[in-house]
Amino acid sequence: MSVPGRGGLLLVPNALDLGTEPVDIQQVLPLGVLQCAARMEHWLAEDARSTRAFLKRVHAVVPLQRPLQAIDIRELPRPPKGGGAGHAAPGDPLWRELLAPALAGKDVGLISEAGLPAVADPGAAAVAAAHALGIVVVPLPGASSLLLALAASGLNGQSFAFVGYLPQDAIQRSARLKELQALSRRTAQTQLLIETPYRNATLLKALLEQLAEETRLSVSCGLSLPSGWTRTDRIAEWRRRPTQMPERVPAVFAFLAD
Amino acid sequence: MSVPGRGGLLLVPNALDLGTEPVDIQQVLPLGVLQCAARMEHWLAEDARSTRAFLKRVHAVVPLQRPLQAIDIRELPRPPKGGGAGHAAPGDPLWRELLAPALAGKDVGLISEAGLPAVADPGAAAVAAAHALGIVVVPLPGASSLLLALAASGLNGQSFAFVGYLPQDAIQRSARLKELQALSRRTAQTQLLIETPYRNATLLKALLEQLAEETRLSVSCGLSLPSGWTRTDRIAEWRRRPTQMPERVPAVFAFLAD
Repeated sequence: MSVPGRGGLLLVPNALDLGTEPVDIQQVLPLGVLQCAARMEHWLAEDARSTRAFLKRVHAVVPLQRPLQAIDIRELPRPPKGGGAGHAAPGDPLWRELLAPALAGKDVGLISEAGLPAVADPGAAAVAAAHALGIVVVPLPGASSLLLALAASGLNGQSFAFVGYLPQDAIQRSARLKELQALSRRTAQTQLLIETPYRNATLLKALLEQLAEETRLSVSCGLSLPSGWTRTDRIAEWRRRPTQMPERVPAVFAFLAD
Repeated sequence: MSVPGRGGLLLVPNALDLGTEPVDIQQVLPLGVLQCAARMEHWLAEDARSTRAFLKRVHAVVPLQRPLQAIDIRELPRPPKGGGAGHAAPGDPLWRELLAPALAGKDVGLISEAGLPAVADPGAAAVAAAHALGIVVVPLPGASSLLLALAASGLNGQSFAFVGYLPQDAIQRSARLKELQALSRRTAQTQLLIETPYRNATLLKALLEQLAEETRLSVSCGLSLPSGWTRTDRIAEWRRRPTQMPERVPAVFAFLAD
């Protein structure tokens, strides 16, 4: 899975627990990934501090090849408010600097706060830049909470879309939900959404209010944690028997309209 | 990650290599998953033979708790020609029989030919049935080739759709591609597609002919294999410098229209 001597951008999956209620990392990541992480000297990350925390967890299973202080961790440029990838296009000279070790024949690890990098996070710009610079990109196998939630939902896994966050404004959110439900009904496409954990209860409330009675809704909470759970039911049943959302636990929402 | 004493449907990720050029399974699956697989006595699978092959690979790392011949592997009902989930609805008595061990308090493992069960495979019907029967569903962490390909593409990972297979008829395929490209352009949504390996070259040819010059196309071939690769380029560049698709290696295709 590595590219010895050539230098590549290795996409390193992280655990899904975000450090809360942390599980033994070998329970959730393949040994091959831990070995690879333990030997890499260069990293690109959303956050250097949490990457050091990740490397400490790796070290407990596979000792790091050099001391943590000697490992080079560079932070990705922050995306502008409101998202968008326009802040640092693949041709931006910044990327040549951030990816310099890979251009010099060394592996660089790209890591996210949870799950796969470059999925629902700012890492995709780094991957696009690597392709533009002719750097080999190697995704290491690991879980994405989005697809674990989809699998656990029992909803249509042959056609699905991840639509990110809903608008926070109630009127816009309601309009967007109606639109997604109509799309789901027309195309039998499962719709996947996320929210920041402290707003999960608000999102669930909106889903229960706005979606149709027969629409099936699945919520996966705390994926890979011992306390994790998935519930799939029609909206009518959710309304009859609501579930309390925990406040600090990441969740993924999926729905399919019949 | 398990549900001791209660009985659940555990979604067990498989390797991505489909047995061709098989890699050491601990390089690609977490130890926690292998330990869980090694102790389970009941399985639901697309194919019993390949499930036994999987269990042999597990056994080489974590010895199975009982002999392979004593492990109960039940095959999922075959979906009808043309797909659709209508063949065995969640309420079908067949599921009560197939999931009987879980109803009796034992764990049942659901496994796919590659990657996550219930994603782009017939397993979702079993998961829906488990929810309908009140059986706890637990997805174990593992890779999906779809999301590894998305991560490796560098295309938009904040909004994406998996659209499955394109129609085989050339006219219908062309119309569908035009529709997906227009959707991608309008909504900045990455479109993910798959094809059976022996038709990958035909699909690539169609994509190069039908998509617009500036559309970015990414192909990931042989994910998690030492020989695997990902290429992302604009269609114009793919046309100038085509890549030969290997014949028997699974691939994932992703595109994003600007």
